[in-house]
Amino acid sequence: MIPEDFLFIGVDGGGSGCRARLADAGGRALGEGTAGPAAVRFGIAGVLAAVESAARAAAVNAGLPAEVLARADAVIGLAGIGRKDVVEALTQAPHPFRSVAYVNDATIACLGAHGGRDGGVVIVGTGSVGLALLRGREVRVGGYGFPISDEGSGADIGLRAIGHSLRAHDGRIAPTALTRAVMARFDNDALAAIAWTDQATATDYATLAPLVMHHAENGDSVARGIVIGAAKEIGALIGALAARGAGRIALVGGLATPIASWLAPDAQSRLVPSEADALDGALRLARRSVGKSHAA
Amino acid sequence: MIPEDFLFIGVDGGGSGCRARLADAGGRALGEGTAGPAAVRFGIAGVLAAVESAARAAAVNAGLPAEVLARADAVIGLAGIGRKDVVEALTQAPHPFRSVAYVNDATIACLGAHGGRDGGVVIVGTGSVGLALLRGREVRVGGYGFPISDEGSGADIGLRAIGHSLRAHDGRIAPTALTRAVMARFDNDALAAIAWTDQATATDYATLAPLVMHHAENGDSVARGIVIGAAKEIGALIGALAARGAGRIALVGGLATPIASWLAPDAQSRLVPSEADALDGALRLARRSVGKSHAA
Repeated sequence: MIPEDFLFIGVDGGGSGCRARLADAGGRALGEGTAGPAAVRFGIAGVLAAVESAARAAAVNAGLPAEVLARADAVIGLAGIGRKDVVEALTQAPHPFRSVAYVNDATIACLGAHGGRDGGVVIVGTGSVGLALLRGREVRVGGYGFPISDEGSGADIGLRAIGHSLRAHDGRIAPTALTRAVMARFDNDALAAIAWTDQATATDYATLAPLVMHHAENGDSVARGIVIGAAKEIGALIGALAARGAGRIALVGGLATPIASWLAPDAQSRLVPSEADALDGALRLARRSVGKSHAA
Repeated sequence: MIPEDFLFIGVDGGGSGCRARLADAGGRALGEGTAGPAAVRFGIAGVLAAVESAARAAAVNAGLPAEVLARADAVIGLAGIGRKDVVEALTQAPHPFRSVAYVNDATIACLGAHGGRDGGVVIVGTGSVGLALLRGREVRVGGYGFPISDEGSGADIGLRAIGHSLRAHDGRIAPTALTRAVMARFDNDALAAIAWTDQATATDYATLAPLVMHHAENGDSVARGIVIGAAKEIGALIGALAARGAGRIALVGGLATPIASWLAPDAQSRLVPSEADALDGALRLARRSVGKSHAA
């Protein structure tokens, strides 16, 4: 049994934002909060600031003072946490919680999607990754970061959209409604677009993904090419998890709904709806850890 | 007429190295020198250091003290100089020469390749770019930087090689001799490969290109796919310059020879051999400027 005064907090940090949910010992959600991006590539300090900000907002939303976080056990899922040494650095940093555990954002998404049972998830948001939990073992596919990996993600889609728009601008391909819309964002100035790319992060590139999806749905040939390519990559992540033994796979993340309809039938047929979200998965993991320590 | 005590120096700075050539008033080459990378993305200070180092080496090679550089008019071609504000910042920086002019590396390559006459060049080395000089006007295609552009370049080829190797490693595609050779460079440790990509520059990625070309020539399916894709991109640069009126186009840069044989016949048929190298083009431009000022 978990003592009644215990609180739990689940956090889901990605390239475009961070969400937190506070729950009581009985598992009831008390409040939620959001903050800015909290992917590992923003740096330890940036991640910790966003996580704390979202957690405080969840406490306020629950009608509780921020000090209650000191009574909460936190599980924090972060995009990009597979990178070396990152978990160690995070674990050593100060935090406002009673305890804290850092895991990959895909892990909590998977726990949430399948109610803690075996299964897989493919996340397609700013980044992309596939992860399955199978008999206590984690299988991971892709999601090694942008631009080396994260195939089919919002960042990948945005990068290709700019690349094709610059090709259309200099005459290598015929312009389309998409390439004109992208260049219009830079006042049709290729130098302005290039200056933007000099500074652009995965998050910045991903802001173009909704525009690409919109034009693809309207039949734009360049946009269709990009989205069909992205759907093929997402399908490859689904297929790889299935081949490793994931019987049911959920597609989650900001681009999950728009990209799902572009998947090939075999990839679509493997998908199941998520039972709950990543925050539920994080809270499940937090309660499981505390439950174990109290059972021991 | 150019006074006899004038000296000229041409410099060609790219992502993988920097070359300088010292010539006398009569156009005779006196000495050559090399130094490390001098692409704009390495920063103004890095560029200036490499340029000066190569120029000093050229003076030494000519049997002259480095002080002779103060008598030399320099034309310096740099990869990536199209980026905003860069020429201004370079021009304001101190230098050891009598005078200095900074231009794009493709400009001097084009002047060298066609002996100062109209024509185009496609550079394929660490980066890629197409440039034509047509009736005094510069036409540029691509070369907007990596990874947004520089399609078909050594960096692009290297990035794809790592990306495919990680896919093979996690089971999305079948491993091949190339993907095994790439992973072997990281002791078959995906985390080590990812940690490397976190820091890798275009120059680092380009170091993998010779390995990819080698495996493509041996029939490796993944390597062939990458090289065929790169050749298609280089062909698009050639085609775009031809469509803009470039009657003869030279393919130059570290990957020019290996990639040429992979080009489609229509792209190959547009190619002519270079008359001279980029340093010759830089020296031609330097002499032209001084010649003009003495004619005036």
